Amino acid sequence: MMVRTDLALEARENIGEGADQVRGVTVSEYSIPELDIRVTRVNVDTKNGAKIIGKPMGTYVTLEVPNLREPDSGYHEEISHVIAEHLREMLPIGKGGMSVLVVGLGNRDVTADSLGPKVVDHLRITRHILDRFGTAAYAGRTMSRVSAIAPGVMARTGMEAEEVIRGIVVQTEPDAVLVIDALAARSTKRLNRTIQISNTGIHPGSGVGNHRNALTEESLGVPVIAIGIPTVVDAGTIVSDALERSGRSIEIDPATWTSELHNFYVTGKDIDEIVHLVSYTLSEAINEALQSEWLQS
Amino acid sequence: MMVRTDLALEARENIGEGADQVRGVTVSEYSIPELDIRVTRVNVDTKNGAKIIGKPMGTYVTLEVPNLREPDSGYHEEISHVIAEHLREMLPIGKGGMSVLVVGLGNRDVTADSLGPKVVDHLRITRHILDRFGTAAYAGRTMSRVSAIAPGVMARTGMEAEEVIRGIVVQTEPDAVLVIDALAARSTKRLNRTIQISNTGIHPGSGVGNHRNALTEESLGVPVIAIGIPTVVDAGTIVSDALERSGRSIEIDPATWTSELHNFYVTGKDIDEIVHLVSYTLSEAINEALQSEWLQS
Amino acid sequence: MMVRTDLALEARENIGEGADQVRGVTVSEYSIPELDIRVTRVNVDTKNGAKIIGKPMGTYVTLEVPNLREPDSGYHEEISHVIAEHLREMLPIGKGGMSVLVVGLGNRDVTADSLGPKVVDHLRITRHILDRFGTAAYAGRTMSRVSAIAPGVMARTGMEAEEVIRGIVVQTEPDAVLVIDALAARSTKRLNRTIQISNTGIHPGSGVGNHRNALTEESLGVPVIAIGIPTVVDAGTIVSDALERSGRSIEIDPATWTSELHNFYVTGKDIDEIVHLVSYTLSEAINEALQSEWLQS
Amino acid sequence: MMVRTDLALEARENIGEGADQVRGVTVSEYSIPELDIRVTRVNVDTKNGAKIIGKPMGTYVTLEVPNLREPDSGYHEEISHVIAEHLREMLPIGKGGMSVLVVGLGNRDVTADSLGPKVVDHLRITRHILDRFGTAAYAGRTMSRVSAIAPGVMARTGMEAEEVIRGIVVQTEPDAVLVIDALAARSTKRLNRTIQISNTGIHPGSGVGNHRNALTEESLGVPVIAIGIPTVVDAGTIVSDALERSGRSIEIDPATWTSELHNFYVTGKDIDEIVHLVSYTLSEAINEALQSEWLQS
Repeated sequence: MMVRTDLALEARENIGEGADQVRGVTVSEYSIPELDIRVTRVNVDTKNGAKIIGKPMGTYVTLEVPNLREPDSGYHEEISHVIAEHLREMLPIGKGGMSVLVVGLGNRDVTADSLGPKVVDHLRITRHILDRFGTAAYAGRTMSRVSAIAPGVMARTGMEAEEVIRGIVVQTEPDAVLVIDALAARSTKRLNRTIQISNTGIHPGSGVGNHRNALTEESLGVPVIAIGIPTVVDAGTIVSDALERSGRSIEIDPATWTSELHNFYVTGKDIDEIVHLVSYTLSEAINEALQSEWLQS
Repeated sequence: MMVRTDLALEARENIGEGADQVRGVTVSEYSIPELDIRVTRVNVDTKNGAKIIGKPMGTYVTLEVPNLREPDSGYHEEISHVIAEHLREMLPIGKGGMSVLVVGLGNRDVTADSLGPKVVDHLRITRHILDRFGTAAYAGRTMSRVSAIAPGVMARTGMEAEEVIRGIVVQTEPDAVLVIDALAARSTKRLNRTIQISNTGIHPGSGVGNHRNALTEESLGVPVIAIGIPTVVDAGTIVSDALERSGRSIEIDPATWTSELHNFYVTGKDIDEIVHLVSYTLSEAINEALQSEWLQS
Repeated sequence: MMVRTDLALEARENIGEGADQVRGVTVSEYSIPELDIRVTRVNVDTKNGAKIIGKPMGTYVTLEVPNLREPDSGYHEEISHVIAEHLREMLPIGKGGMSVLVVGLGNRDVTADSLGPKVVDHLRITRHILDRFGTAAYAGRTMSRVSAIAPGVMARTGMEAEEVIRGIVVQTEPDAVLVIDALAARSTKRLNRTIQISNTGIHPGSGVGNHRNALTEESLGVPVIAIGIPTVVDAGTIVSDALERSGRSIEIDPATWTSELHNFYVTGKDIDEIVHLVSYTLSEAINEALQSEWLQS
Repeated sequence: MMVRTDLALEARENIGEGADQVRGVTVSEYSIPELDIRVTRVNVDTKNGAKIIGKPMGTYVTLEVPNLREPDSGYHEEISHVIAEHLREMLPIGKGGMSVLVVGLGNRDVTADSLGPKVVDHLRITRHILDRFGTAAYAGRTMSRVSAIAPGVMARTGMEAEEVIRGIVVQTEPDAVLVIDALAARSTKRLNRTIQISNTGIHPGSGVGNHRNALTEESLGVPVIAIGIPTVVDAGTIVSDALERSGRSIEIDPATWTSELHNFYVTGKDIDEIVHLVSYTLSEAINEALQSEWLQS
């Protein structure tokens, strides 16, 4: 039975017993007790590991933040710092900053799919300023050249996000691409409280609106870092899970009558407040990661 | 097991065998083959009927429109006419028009809950014009005095929609209130393809964001007509249904582990396009119903 | 020649020479040098003073903040504190907090007129929470009961904002009303850098969309505090001023050919960024003023 | 004195006396009395003509539609037909349709600058559908391959619209680009009632937010057709005009004290309703022009 999840953490769990000993997949975990955050780092090191876990080779850091939904600005500031730190690890930001194109995937008009466009709305955009005034004007502090785009979804543009982004990358030559997207989880308990940061880019997958071709170093020619937060669960998955839990999954054929369900998704009733809140947290994390030198000096 | 549905049609089906012979509930059906519309009129005539069916006394007209999602403007115009006709039956519009406050319930920022506010955006508002120029200026044709408000949701206003609307009704004294709201269905097959028009107002219920106190003739002092379209299914309901279909509902206790699911809802992946499309259709229907005399003359 | 301004500061300047000695109008000024803010307090003490200055009796505090447009969050936090202080002076907030209805006037869909609705979007709404859990649950700290509404503009609702607000006030009985609105200034040099706080409410006036009836203690029955920021200048006013400065205002009749201009307004090219930025600053100020006891304890 | 206008019609008027005999500029006019539309076609045929009139060589068709602001859907449908006809003249649409990238310039969050993004919202997008199902599936009728993008403004993206569009054009290889933008007029009497269609693309110019590099056949490699509607007048221009009309323009130096005014623009108080209304009219015109064969068969 197909399991739809964008989280490496869940993909690993899906393997079931013995997940800890999969060859080619290294897992390490630790907690940040004062913030009630659990950090899991999944490294998919070999092709074989990638095949078993169903996720491309690379590093996936997952932050589980049970209180991500709390509207406490001081707390969210702390979370931003943690995310920024992981971003800086994955992005090869030099002393002189770097040139990054931030891509907000998703549909601005669908609440559960609007995370990417909303993160982009709050970013500190600097590319045009540095181009005009030169970096010399900012001597003593180092700024990254940040540009951003929300390419829209295929139903509205007629183009794959990949085509749009590849065109812009060829034209503007950033050092790296940073993609933000709303993800699909397998379990409702991960919705809106989990942040995944990976250096593998974005792969055709579950997502909210299925609006994703590959956005990877292979397709774009520069490193692609991805940040995502699961905001939906596929409706078919939730029902399959329910049947499985009830011990009946073998005897009936859920695939038949749940296939229609894959046109639907499950989301939380407070999704708009969460997206509003968390999009700021991610923006601040990105701003901090890319302009960090500036803030330190 | 609690079944969450705002549709009288589904409430009736829930009774199961013998639903057709419930005393105090009259059901009649007919089709409009050229539009592929099936019309069901449920009359809840007695208190006993209301108790059995779980819906207040009154009339519920349901239009099942399988092609409601098709972006064909000519077809939607035809649907508008049908809705307008049913609205005119329920609203006591006299020769001189009437004074109607249209209320768009729901959260503009949550796609599946934004139907009400979006319908209100497209209405032909006339109250302030008629107040300024007088109806004499429109001699020979009769116009209703239309006002409208989208009161927002309690998490954003701190007030029940009922409080806001009652205050406005007392102040502006409309002849009737027309409420638009996104509904919850029991079955995904009814999502975005069913229109319910009733003369019973809105009752505390399932809805998308549970943002509803009673908006009824009893609470507001004037007749309350309601139009709704189901855009969500409660996630707990969908799982309960799945279990039931698998024949396992009796042996396990779904209530326990599905209760958490009631914080989630299921919606279609193309919800934004549907709400965009259908909100126009409803606005046009209301405009036609309330300004009908004008259009005829 | 009619001068259109919502700022008491400008109304006073309009009197020209001798403005400092107008009987019934007391003016005091001071600076906050570390924030580069100039504070002017205009007290209109008598009916005669009100007549001369063209503004109702009461207190008008104007903060001139030349750097209000700078996207520096630390600086805006400081400005929020200053605004909160003046709000607390005008609002009779007792030890136990108070009940306040915040009203965001204006049209959400017109950038220059969207300040009110956007401020309301970011407020900490507490009325429904305190109603459910009781104030005892928050013992030791005092919280105001905050509710909020953006009533929309008459072209969209068919109702005066005054009718809507009066209805809600009668229904929900707040201790005070706090109105936020985009204002019209006389001079472009005041746009987006001036904040006016007054205890006189809102009077029919220039505004962006002329969408204002009186929202005053007289019309609503409770004290009405108003906060506004000028975001537009009337296009006729700007031309009249130009002619006057050129020394030609007497010889020609500007009224004739500038009257058409009063259907237009002048606004800054960066208006969306300013409204986005400043709406947060005002929201934070209101949150701080109304929840101050909580923050202190 | 610099005159800021995007309208070839006004550029020509600016020349003053003898405008009709400028060598290299051909002008023809006619009326559509039943729609109260005046059509002016300005052909700039030579480099010399381009220099005198201050607009690049090419064809500019201007429709003056005094009633463009009337919310009469039947009337707007007629206007759509007229625009579609002119579009088909300029776009080399063959029997098999053509591949067109529609670009909506401007800032979605600034009412007066949101025309482009809003037009794009309502387009019939077909590129991805034809790519998936093939044109054979639509045998007997010919459909253009339509894609669309609203690239955002430089303050938000850090990139020139030109860079973004050039990248997408190289990647997706459309036959032509169709650009929609809000324009700047010289005179308020042209605001929101004039439509300009040209085959010269978009040139760095006045616009609302000054967000424009060249989008031309030269820069993009394919024909660029532009449609625009003036929604703003530069505030400096309006004042200069006023002074000129008062006969004082020579004696004083308006440039000095109006230069600050160029950071401001003038727009109509009903701008949101107009943009809402007219964006549909333009979308329908584009849909009709590009899918015309389909509609005819």
